[in-house]
Amino acid sequence: MRGVSTTALIVIDMLNPYEHEDADALADSVEKIVEPLRGLIERARERDDVRLLYVNDNYGDFSTTRDDLVESALKGQRPDLVEPIAPTPDCAFLPKVRHSAFYGTSLEYLLLREQIGDVVLVGQVTEQCILYSALDAYVRHLKIKVPRDAVAHIDPHLGEAALQMMERNMRAEIVTAATCLT
Amino acid sequence: MRGVSTTALIVIDMLNPYEHEDADALADSVEKIVEPLRGLIERARERDDVRLLYVNDNYGDFSTTRDDLVESALKGQRPDLVEPIAPTPDCAFLPKVRHSAFYGTSLEYLLLREQIGDVVLVGQVTEQCILYSALDAYVRHLKIKVPRDAVAHIDPHLGEAALQMMERNMRAEIVTAATCLT
Amino acid sequence: MRGVSTTALIVIDMLNPYEHEDADALADSVEKIVEPLRGLIERARERDDVRLLYVNDNYGDFSTTRDDLVESALKGQRPDLVEPIAPTPDCAFLPKVRHSAFYGTSLEYLLLREQIGDVVLVGQVTEQCILYSALDAYVRHLKIKVPRDAVAHIDPHLGEAALQMMERNMRAEIVTAATCLT
Amino acid sequence: MRGVSTTALIVIDMLNPYEHEDADALADSVEKIVEPLRGLIERARERDDVRLLYVNDNYGDFSTTRDDLVESALKGQRPDLVEPIAPTPDCAFLPKVRHSAFYGTSLEYLLLREQIGDVVLVGQVTEQCILYSALDAYVRHLKIKVPRDAVAHIDPHLGEAALQMMERNMRAEIVTAATCLT
Repeated sequence: MRGVSTTALIVIDMLNPYEHEDADALADSVEKIVEPLRGLIERARERDDVRLLYVNDNYGDFSTTRDDLVESALKGQRPDLVEPIAPTPDCAFLPKVRHSAFYGTSLEYLLLREQIGDVVLVGQVTEQCILYSALDAYVRHLKIKVPRDAVAHIDPHLGEAALQMMERNMRAEIVTAATCLT
Repeated sequence: MRGVSTTALIVIDMLNPYEHEDADALADSVEKIVEPLRGLIERARERDDVRLLYVNDNYGDFSTTRDDLVESALKGQRPDLVEPIAPTPDCAFLPKVRHSAFYGTSLEYLLLREQIGDVVLVGQVTEQCILYSALDAYVRHLKIKVPRDAVAHIDPHLGEAALQMMERNMRAEIVTAATCLT
Repeated sequence: MRGVSTTALIVIDMLNPYEHEDADALADSVEKIVEPLRGLIERARERDDVRLLYVNDNYGDFSTTRDDLVESALKGQRPDLVEPIAPTPDCAFLPKVRHSAFYGTSLEYLLLREQIGDVVLVGQVTEQCILYSALDAYVRHLKIKVPRDAVAHIDPHLGEAALQMMERNMRAEIVTAATCLT
Repeated sequence: MRGVSTTALIVIDMLNPYEHEDADALADSVEKIVEPLRGLIERARERDDVRLLYVNDNYGDFSTTRDDLVESALKGQRPDLVEPIAPTPDCAFLPKVRHSAFYGTSLEYLLLREQIGDVVLVGQVTEQCILYSALDAYVRHLKIKVPRDAVAHIDPHLGEAALQMMERNMRAEIVTAATCLT
């Protein structure tokens, strides 16, 4: 049983073919987080007290599965940004339909059911899905950590403002990938 | 685009290995609905104005996909009740975590987004997931049809009471599979 | 602070002017529950470990307040069914918009925040708002008690079926007002 | 009936006694918006096609009513910031429990039910409740307008970043109070 986990590492929207508007600016930022994120995911896998969860947009296709999303991302413009952090078949995977990882998903239920009160948010985009998921975590009184080197932005200025908002107004700890599971 | 659909046919919890408590009583009832349900699904596929949706419990396993659920149901006690109505890979498929098809899923979002105001609820169990999904549809002001010969019960008395509740208190039309898409 | 409560007594839809369709059948049943319900509310008030909550429909008027609803119910057809159980100004009061006490309200948030895992559902209508609120409590893994002599029905047959559904399928304990807080 | 409204003017958290941390910085900003906001509320009242809604935090007290919140705000540090924009008893009023106007409230239900697709968000705090409510409006595909002179911030830098995020990432129109209902 999962009862031992107290922290969830939530990997958001990393299954991306990088073919959308702004994809280049985003990919530049993702390049820098792939290695720290890969390491963090690896450490999460090794620990009994960390629940690893992938939450990813279904891009409007309700017939898509985790495997379809992985395949499509690997066939996209930047497989090098996908392959190191792709979920394995045993990973918990929640499809989402909009920006927040909580909206229209079973994430809140899963966290409550498994009595997980701490979330580490990683992935993309800092000033969009990460920020919005942080907000939804905050209104639910979850404790939030965001490793600065494991979240990617499109706009550096708004990305920085988002981190400030999370820190000041949502009581998030802004940390690093190396230290966030210690 | 999906914009033409005005009705959704929602197939609930038919991917079942029939290994749980009460599975025998349920399977006896499912036997009688498989053929009308198969025909109804077939007609839905042929029509542009009907959105076919499968919603199925993930049985507590958040790593499971549609394909896993189909495979596991086909390997269960009653593949004959699964094979005729199994979703094809192009089918919209929403995993659910509790009884109602709305709770912890993107179903409400999908229906709103596609401007679908009418739902036909089919599958199992009449006095549980069907009833609870009907309630959640009713509070959202959706029009509900339930084909009596395409929903399966465990307890005949409670199944009948559930149909009465849906009809009297949730304004559902209790119909037949043959007529519900006309 | 409220931290000591572990049980909530949730009084549903008792502020009713009894002017709607079916009001007479309902009032006949409410007559029998007023005294046990009054006693139960009184005991809840005296106990530190019971959170007393009123949840009531706003009847579509979003400008209405608790005080308006009390006044309107007292001016209705059956003030004798309202006066003994009316909330005092210090009572927690949540307006609702549809049948379930959870839909479109802050009830889930309040229960989570105050770490309340047990709910006692009382009021009206057994086969409608009580049943639907029980379902929403059950999908959230709350423990449910329903005192048979503190819930009122419109249809005796459906009311009885609703109690059976709650007991068998939602793990509710069907109890009496006298014993449900012991 | 309300069916004619297509836009809602949503006044957020203006019933504030201004006694919290950061209240002074906030009040300085609110001073500048009171007059444009008062005018905007007045115009909304005069128009059949605009639904005026107040949504306000209950500050953790579930027994509080609209009238209590008005009274408490008028007795606070800055009645001059409250009196000109206080809701009258006929105003729709939704209590909220956390930052977003959508979380734990019936706002989504009300907007859907009244077929309102456009929202104008006003009040406080730009980089908190306004931003978070905008996000929740955006994921629900509502069209958003935010009059820059009718929203108040605590931190000018984060307030500005919040407006940029709403404009770029949530397709909000950043407008003025004078023009937003034309």
